[in-house]
Amino acid sequence: VSDAAPPALTRESLEAMIVRGPFHQWLGLKVRAFDADSVELEATYRDEWRVRADAQYTHGGILAALVDVAADWALAHRMGRAQPTIDMRVDYHAPANPGNLVAKGRIIKFGSRFSVCEASVYDTGGQLVASGRGTYLTMAPKS
Amino acid sequence: VSDAAPPALTRESLEAMIVRGPFHQWLGLKVRAFDADSVELEATYRDEWRVRADAQYTHGGILAALVDVAADWALAHRMGRAQPTIDMRVDYHAPANPGNLVAKGRIIKFGSRFSVCEASVYDTGGQLVASGRGTYLTMAPKS
Amino acid sequence: VSDAAPPALTRESLEAMIVRGPFHQWLGLKVRAFDADSVELEATYRDEWRVRADAQYTHGGILAALVDVAADWALAHRMGRAQPTIDMRVDYHAPANPGNLVAKGRIIKFGSRFSVCEASVYDTGGQLVASGRGTYLTMAPKS
Amino acid sequence: VSDAAPPALTRESLEAMIVRGPFHQWLGLKVRAFDADSVELEATYRDEWRVRADAQYTHGGILAALVDVAADWALAHRMGRAQPTIDMRVDYHAPANPGNLVAKGRIIKFGSRFSVCEASVYDTGGQLVASGRGTYLTMAPKS
Repeated sequence: VSDAAPPALTRESLEAMIVRGPFHQWLGLKVRAFDADSVELEATYRDEWRVRADAQYTHGGILAALVDVAADWALAHRMGRAQPTIDMRVDYHAPANPGNLVAKGRIIKFGSRFSVCEASVYDTGGQLVASGRGTYLTMAPKS
Repeated sequence: VSDAAPPALTRESLEAMIVRGPFHQWLGLKVRAFDADSVELEATYRDEWRVRADAQYTHGGILAALVDVAADWALAHRMGRAQPTIDMRVDYHAPANPGNLVAKGRIIKFGSRFSVCEASVYDTGGQLVASGRGTYLTMAPKS
Repeated sequence: VSDAAPPALTRESLEAMIVRGPFHQWLGLKVRAFDADSVELEATYRDEWRVRADAQYTHGGILAALVDVAADWALAHRMGRAQPTIDMRVDYHAPANPGNLVAKGRIIKFGSRFSVCEASVYDTGGQLVASGRGTYLTMAPKS
Repeated sequence: VSDAAPPALTRESLEAMIVRGPFHQWLGLKVRAFDADSVELEATYRDEWRVRADAQYTHGGILAALVDVAADWALAHRMGRAQPTIDMRVDYHAPANPGNLVAKGRIIKFGSRFSVCEASVYDTGGQLVASGRGTYLTMAPKS
């Protein structure tokens, strides 16, 4: 019926929402946890991520994408859709060893028109490899 | 002999240097032009870049990677190696239509320890879709 | 009459608009030049700007303020009011020697809701001491 | 004697170190608290901080300066000197009401060559008005 409450978001339904996107699928994203203001994602290592053929560490472009995705979905999961990124900053802290990466996103400030979120990315050894923050559009998109 | 001048960098040799990296190869990077302070790269569209299955525009993570790569190689091509990115900022200006992307990088300030470069990304229609800047380590890496 | 054209903006009227703000007044801002997409401001040196009592160079906080003000007014002068800054990035390139500073702002991308502008700051010797970019709200403020 | 331990840093000695700088003095900086990885500063309101004569809120340039100073001193207090800022990002969250401002800085990642710190600025009502992060040079300055 029309006044039914929306089905509660589960880890599985959130993950299904995220991996509808081909790039997210390519990143092999899984949802590890989430609550009202944060999300924890895992990305599945691919050989294509490497900076160099003879060195295993992951390219900064992948880390930047994970900062963006985790910061965005810290917000997006409660709005039911990804928000356009207005801009973002990424800091690189250490080379990312080969293997899956974990990205934790968190809302810094929610606003009705745009919001600021941050994210940190860890490699399989639990080492902080990158972190950053971005501004996301939360107002209704232009029709 | 030991005092031979290094072979001059050509468009082909620079491109070969860049695509040695698996992630750069996956991005289908080609060198369109370069001079002492700048570089112009083209990335070859892949379906995996899409944000959504039903909408063709390219994910911001790909645009961020291209800002980083073009800013880095504006500098790197004259040093013969990519420089580690310390941090970067990306601004998103418009949805990127499907198709190849062109990224133009330029040095803002060269320094002996770290340098600042900027880059702009254009879609196939010539529309500016993203731009940004980053700080790159130009001092010798830690041994 | 009601359909009279607004008086043309002059260097003097723009400067008067900017220095209505107490902080802008304290910065001793003067308009050197402007056109549709850019503005060039000069800030008048004060001893309070110094980082240290025994070293004359100007504090990075002043340089950040000048990046913000010049980027903002590259846009603001054609809208007749300063735009709220959503966020900004500043890169520091060299210590700023004592003396007046010149800040040049330019629009990178104008948008109906928010816009991106950049600015560069030069010291009296003409040396580039800082540069950066910011996102500014161009939509009508919330009532 | 030469092998004496350095005198322990106290709130008073740290504050004295910070306000040696003329700009810091003008900001009326006081140290409220500090530990190994963080610092909490208070800045004393001045009428010159205002954006507009008829509106009391504080200019974004002041907020940017406070983000920079608090992020820097989260690190600096344990090194006994301020570190040069390489670059920084500031996000603006809300207009800052007139009155003193509190800036809390924290180290995100300490490195032997450069470090990343973040800071948040609160107005007298305890409202988060700005936050940001910067990269600071921690290697020995060039001689």
